Amino acid sequence: MDPVLPVTPADIADAAARIAPYVHRTPLVSTATLGEMAGCELWLKAENLQKVGAFKARGAHNAVFALDDAEAACGVVTHSSGNHAAALALAARNRGITAHVVMPSNAPLVKQQAVAAYGAEITLCEPTLEAREQTVAEVQARTGAVLVHPYDNSLVIAGQGTAGLEILEQLDGRPPDAVVVPVGGGGLLAGIAVAVKNTLPGCEVVAAEPTGADDAYRSFLAGKIIPQTGPNTVADGLLTSLGERNFAIIRTLVDDVVLVDDAQIIDAMKLIWTRTKLVVEPSGAVAVAAILRHRKRFEGKRVVALLTGGNVDLDQLPWDVNHGADVAG
Amino acid sequence: MDPVLPVTPADIADAAARIAPYVHRTPLVSTATLGEMAGCELWLKAENLQKVGAFKARGAHNAVFALDDAEAACGVVTHSSGNHAAALALAARNRGITAHVVMPSNAPLVKQQAVAAYGAEITLCEPTLEAREQTVAEVQARTGAVLVHPYDNSLVIAGQGTAGLEILEQLDGRPPDAVVVPVGGGGLLAGIAVAVKNTLPGCEVVAAEPTGADDAYRSFLAGKIIPQTGPNTVADGLLTSLGERNFAIIRTLVDDVVLVDDAQIIDAMKLIWTRTKLVVEPSGAVAVAAILRHRKRFEGKRVVALLTGGNVDLDQLPWDVNHGADVAG
Repeated sequence: MDPVLPVTPADIADAAARIAPYVHRTPLVSTATLGEMAGCELWLKAENLQKVGAFKARGAHNAVFALDDAEAACGVVTHSSGNHAAALALAARNRGITAHVVMPSNAPLVKQQAVAAYGAEITLCEPTLEAREQTVAEVQARTGAVLVHPYDNSLVIAGQGTAGLEILEQLDGRPPDAVVVPVGGGGLLAGIAVAVKNTLPGCEVVAAEPTGADDAYRSFLAGKIIPQTGPNTVADGLLTSLGERNFAIIRTLVDDVVLVDDAQIIDAMKLIWTRTKLVVEPSGAVAVAAILRHRKRFEGKRVVALLTGGNVDLDQLPWDVNHGADVAG
Repeated sequence: MDPVLPVTPADIADAAARIAPYVHRTPLVSTATLGEMAGCELWLKAENLQKVGAFKARGAHNAVFALDDAEAACGVVTHSSGNHAAALALAARNRGITAHVVMPSNAPLVKQQAVAAYGAEITLCEPTLEAREQTVAEVQARTGAVLVHPYDNSLVIAGQGTAGLEILEQLDGRPPDAVVVPVGGGGLLAGIAVAVKNTLPGCEVVAAEPTGADDAYRSFLAGKIIPQTGPNTVADGLLTSLGERNFAIIRTLVDDVVLVDDAQIIDAMKLIWTRTKLVVEPSGAVAVAAILRHRKRFEGKRVVALLTGGNVDLDQLPWDVNHGADVAG
């Protein structure tokens, strides 16, 4: 393995020990029905059942609990309106320190409330990149809080990689042929790639990405980061561009990036809900969508798909639901 | 225990051994969030993860695999448009015999397709009680198939009771104070009451019922069966009236019947989806709804709620969902 990568297998082993008291060892679920549809032996790593409903709890806890006491005393800060914000809030609460979360003023109230419920201090800013970075800098200057970036952070990447370690342990010595991971900023993908390739160099690590936010696909082909502009996808957890540390790992260790469109993501989401009775958010269905869409690529293999999260607003679903007044009587 | 009851603990032990190769031992899931809301230590028996997505797989397999070879050769028949039909179809397929299912001609196509997908022979009839009974009689006369009633059948009750045996084993010697079970025809409730009261006479067994189909509540108070007329509830698995065998057990062993209205059922359903990431159908949320509604009754106790099933038409949900075209982009 390339020694200059920003995260090593030892970092992931350290992370696993550090976060074990605070996060779930999520189940690896076999699904015969979806496997038959995909023509492969399909396993689902159910990170939707993780604390805060998403894998983000792993990286956030690793970053927060790796701080020394002096650093921790000033708290942590991040910018996010999604699962990373809730995860950092929970991790800070578990350590007994303050989490500052900078959110755009147009973030849905339900997301603001979710983060506040975990005890974070929320600072709203204008919904622009400049306002966000300036507001984070102001919070840091005022409080001395440590920035925990949602993905371009070695401790966060190592924390997410613990999901990969668990997959290897949970298959009872029957190694997978491929692990398929949704990619946004690339924290989970990079972490899992380091964990899996260290033990199983022959196991493919494949990224799954929405066509409407395909910067990882284009960056992977070009061999350099091509930032996302104007992303447009139902998978709202995957809108961001790859991070620098993430791409350094991904270009070295990941075998392929495959694309799925929004209709395929929504179909996969509904299939997962219907067949496995597990609630996943659109981003959480992208790996399964890719396995169904790129059937030939995975046919006959033993494949693990990451279900990355399950935080959905049930009053706002991405498909057409007939109003249920007649059902409810 | 009353020796004249139609199902004994030994019947349930026999059922457990008989069906073990064909059904799941479903997880008993702890939920701190919902427990905090209810003020109790709450565990969920996740029968939505059972084969065919509902506890009905237990009773159907017990009834089908208890037949001797001569009886089985002619197949089985039932009337149902719901989970029992799918369960009987799967059980028959597993035994290699034919399942005949009589369904009303107005049953949703999606339900007809689900039952057909398990290999059953479907006979449609007019949507009246008379037509249904006549059609079942015709199928029996033509084929010699054995009737497997959805709930008023001792083998079905014993099969459903195996869920109760598992609960007792899964709590690791920490007995529950109460087990809460949705009631429609009373198969699951009666079976679980026999299993639980045999081992833990001091553990309450409480039935949860929709106000719009409250025949169990009224029958329990009156001490005799008062059939349901004109049921109207979102919990479409609980529309039926209590069976004779079921009521004989329920009046003897069940401690109480509590009611919840449809708004409470829908709220509980959404809470379960959101907090536990488990898909349950409206009927499957009735026990949790009852624990939240009758908070004082369960406060401070260790309580098990049955999640009875998870078969939902995602295009027809019992709450108002904003059309998602803007989300899907």
